[in-house]
Amino acid sequence: MSKADIGLVGLAVMGENLVMNMESKGFTVAVYNRTTEKVTNFVEGRAKGKNIIGALNVKDFVNSLKKPRRIMIMVKAGKPVDATIDQLIPHLEEGDIIIDGGNSHFPDTIRRAQYVESKGLLYIGTGVSGGEEGALNGPAIMPGGSEAAWPHVKDIFTAISAKAGEDQSPCCIWIGKDGAGHFVKMVHNGIEYGDMQLICETYAVMKDILGMTNDEIHKTFTRWNEGRLDSYLIEITRDIMGYKDEDGNYVVDEILDTAGQKGTGKWTSQSALDEGVALTLISEAVFSRCLSALKEQRVAAAQQLQKKKLDVKIDREAVLKDLEEALFCSKVVSYAQGYSLMATAAETFGWTLDMGGIAMIWRGGCIIRSAFLNEIKKSFEADPNLANLMLAPYFKDVLDKGQEAWRRIITLGISSAVAVPAMSSALAYFDGYFTDRLPANLLQAQRDYFGAHTFEKLGHPRGEFFHVNWTGKGGTTSASTYSI
Amino acid sequence: MSKADIGLVGLAVMGENLVMNMESKGFTVAVYNRTTEKVTNFVEGRAKGKNIIGALNVKDFVNSLKKPRRIMIMVKAGKPVDATIDQLIPHLEEGDIIIDGGNSHFPDTIRRAQYVESKGLLYIGTGVSGGEEGALNGPAIMPGGSEAAWPHVKDIFTAISAKAGEDQSPCCIWIGKDGAGHFVKMVHNGIEYGDMQLICETYAVMKDILGMTNDEIHKTFTRWNEGRLDSYLIEITRDIMGYKDEDGNYVVDEILDTAGQKGTGKWTSQSALDEGVALTLISEAVFSRCLSALKEQRVAAAQQLQKKKLDVKIDREAVLKDLEEALFCSKVVSYAQGYSLMATAAETFGWTLDMGGIAMIWRGGCIIRSAFLNEIKKSFEADPNLANLMLAPYFKDVLDKGQEAWRRIITLGISSAVAVPAMSSALAYFDGYFTDRLPANLLQAQRDYFGAHTFEKLGHPRGEFFHVNWTGKGGTTSASTYSI
Repeated sequence: MSKADIGLVGLAVMGENLVMNMESKGFTVAVYNRTTEKVTNFVEGRAKGKNIIGALNVKDFVNSLKKPRRIMIMVKAGKPVDATIDQLIPHLEEGDIIIDGGNSHFPDTIRRAQYVESKGLLYIGTGVSGGEEGALNGPAIMPGGSEAAWPHVKDIFTAISAKAGEDQSPCCIWIGKDGAGHFVKMVHNGIEYGDMQLICETYAVMKDILGMTNDEIHKTFTRWNEGRLDSYLIEITRDIMGYKDEDGNYVVDEILDTAGQKGTGKWTSQSALDEGVALTLISEAVFSRCLSALKEQRVAAAQQLQKKKLDVKIDREAVLKDLEEALFCSKVVSYAQGYSLMATAAETFGWTLDMGGIAMIWRGGCIIRSAFLNEIKKSFEADPNLANLMLAPYFKDVLDKGQEAWRRIITLGISSAVAVPAMSSALAYFDGYFTDRLPANLLQAQRDYFGAHTFEKLGHPRGEFFHVNWTGKGGTTSASTYSI
Repeated sequence: MSKADIGLVGLAVMGENLVMNMESKGFTVAVYNRTTEKVTNFVEGRAKGKNIIGALNVKDFVNSLKKPRRIMIMVKAGKPVDATIDQLIPHLEEGDIIIDGGNSHFPDTIRRAQYVESKGLLYIGTGVSGGEEGALNGPAIMPGGSEAAWPHVKDIFTAISAKAGEDQSPCCIWIGKDGAGHFVKMVHNGIEYGDMQLICETYAVMKDILGMTNDEIHKTFTRWNEGRLDSYLIEITRDIMGYKDEDGNYVVDEILDTAGQKGTGKWTSQSALDEGVALTLISEAVFSRCLSALKEQRVAAAQQLQKKKLDVKIDREAVLKDLEEALFCSKVVSYAQGYSLMATAAETFGWTLDMGGIAMIWRGGCIIRSAFLNEIKKSFEADPNLANLMLAPYFKDVLDKGQEAWRRIITLGISSAVAVPAMSSALAYFDGYFTDRLPANLLQAQRDYFGAHTFEKLGHPRGEFFHVNWTGKGGTTSASTYSI
């Protein structure tokens, strides 16, 4: 058999599906897995009769590849990635390319890119989004790392990626150096957390306040999915709300209300904290999962205290109309915050991110694909230096028109004792952002009072610091070791 | 001169004040600073005629100390601490004690405790709270590290610490091994962020919704400080709202509304994300500071979009009464979240934290000192295994009685376009915690739909996982590399 175009290490579902995808696009793929049984099973099973070469050791695997060798790693994030890299390196030659396609944390990717480049090799850390199905039929792909590697993988990556938009453009662009690809994938996942939480809060309003049946909710999501909310997550929510098991019971009603979470959402919030970017919605989404996990505590607590609601009049049709607006406006804020995080991190890490391009590639393959992303793409194309997505004409108009409905829905949730933390945090961000005066002047006064932290003054140049001896006693020096 | 009881490295304001405090309690203190001019200035100035020994090099400094030597480091958190430790070690003998009294990040303290212990020495990382004034007149002290060191520093630490309560008990207890002291200090600072943000939101409601004057606000805080909200932060807010400069202008009105932040608040949120604990209020407080920092963007944005408010009827007296309740209830949630974080982290890091004791020592010296902490102390004394502070009888009663007022205030803020993110997040946590069913069942369905993540079922044992082939296509295996 001729040499393979690309090699893949790690035959879990995502890895296998990527191999099948590559092969179906005309590429010959070599595969290797630490547990070699998986190689044998794959080659004799799903891969039978395909241009897929199984290797039972690293040396054979590497030798089966065309040069420069392109090797994609699809193993568990963390130490297994480092171990695989170290296993490969002794067998590789200058210019060969190692590609990590897992959900690695971007600081690891920054470190690995440096390490692998120091060995004369090239490194790519790439986000691959879309789950199992995306891997098989076309994921969104977000590669970053050694730029010199890009021309060697571009054909394969664009071939296997999802296609989106009228011109069916591939959902893959080069993101930037070292950890940029995994960073953008991380933010993508954070946004996914936000979108999912927003839909859950919407569902809670429908179910717990409006008393809608699953079928009614199903129909509402069906209708919404035909409008500006058209997206994969609304679509699957529609399906879920209509899905019954063999006994005719709605499965969604039987599912335990404790959400799991693994890494990427929390990383996004932690990165926002490092960058000093207000990423409130995604953080509330992550924390909501944490709270949901305390099922036993919640069940016990619910017995101990009765919620007291405020009187509200409910007109179901009016609420549903408002709810669509509240969901859409909140979603705008979530993406605005995510894009702000990317912009700030890009400065910190020296990446030049193509914000419109990132919206473009998220339109297909991945979980957050939506009509909405077209508008983000257009907004950044019209103004690549947009300070905040909420200021783009389309989105500003959405928020301007939707804000009253949005306020009504959150007010309704709060009055009805139904938690809508992500929507509330979104509105608070909107209200805070479009405000020239926040109450932080008092906060600065407090910090100066107890810690002599100094403050700036309105109408004075930035960087001019003042201190007041509020109590008439205490020091006049500004604080140094004590900082809060 | 006889040998010194303790040595202190780092003569910034906090360090100097701690030295003066120790000396005033009868201890002889040796001091050293990298820039030796500071030593000379201090010894010839503030320290003149006191039992304070200045040393111009490390050797003399170390030799001036009684054994086992007790050396407290008060330098900038980060590398300077490591550098100082490495400077000291060659001069020390087995059993000598290095004490870091700065705001070090607890993982650094864990690492340093291990390192210093490996050299046959003892290590303490201690939180010292109360700013400059606390350092001088009595801070809250939270020491953790090598337990064998505690008997050697207990006398000094308790002597210099604040005293609180009817029996004037010292605000210092041994917290736990390695990083426990700095961890608890970090959470303390996070809670401080939360308290400050809550007061700012309260101020915004008074100023921007009720249209109160500074003098009216001053009087309200004066009154509140005489009730259950009695605390240092309410007290200084009272002072700030009444403070005028020489020209008779209120200083608070002149201060730029951009809050600074340095480390500890963000660390608290990041740690909560790592521990999977919903710490929403403090996180909103940190993010509010980030948003406030975008002053230029906010000023520009405010010109581009007009807020649309909902109609509300306002009865100032009724709103003020509600506001006190909303502030108090939100504060309960903030502490409940902070204590949950401490409980979870204690399990992770193997600390045995005395929750009542921690509340006790926070009652004096530090920024968050308050009457409120007495109730926390009592609650944990009554039930050391309290699953959540909100379940303690006193606090449950507060929340039960206050919830309607709390809902009204947030509803008012949202209707009036005045952001109250911390209060909103607190209420959402309350509503979520006291709920047996959250909408996370839908979220789990979504995760199973797109990623085959599986779910648990109501009425089935935990740990039994189900998967549904929602679309009739796609895989049946659970996800492995792709995790969200």
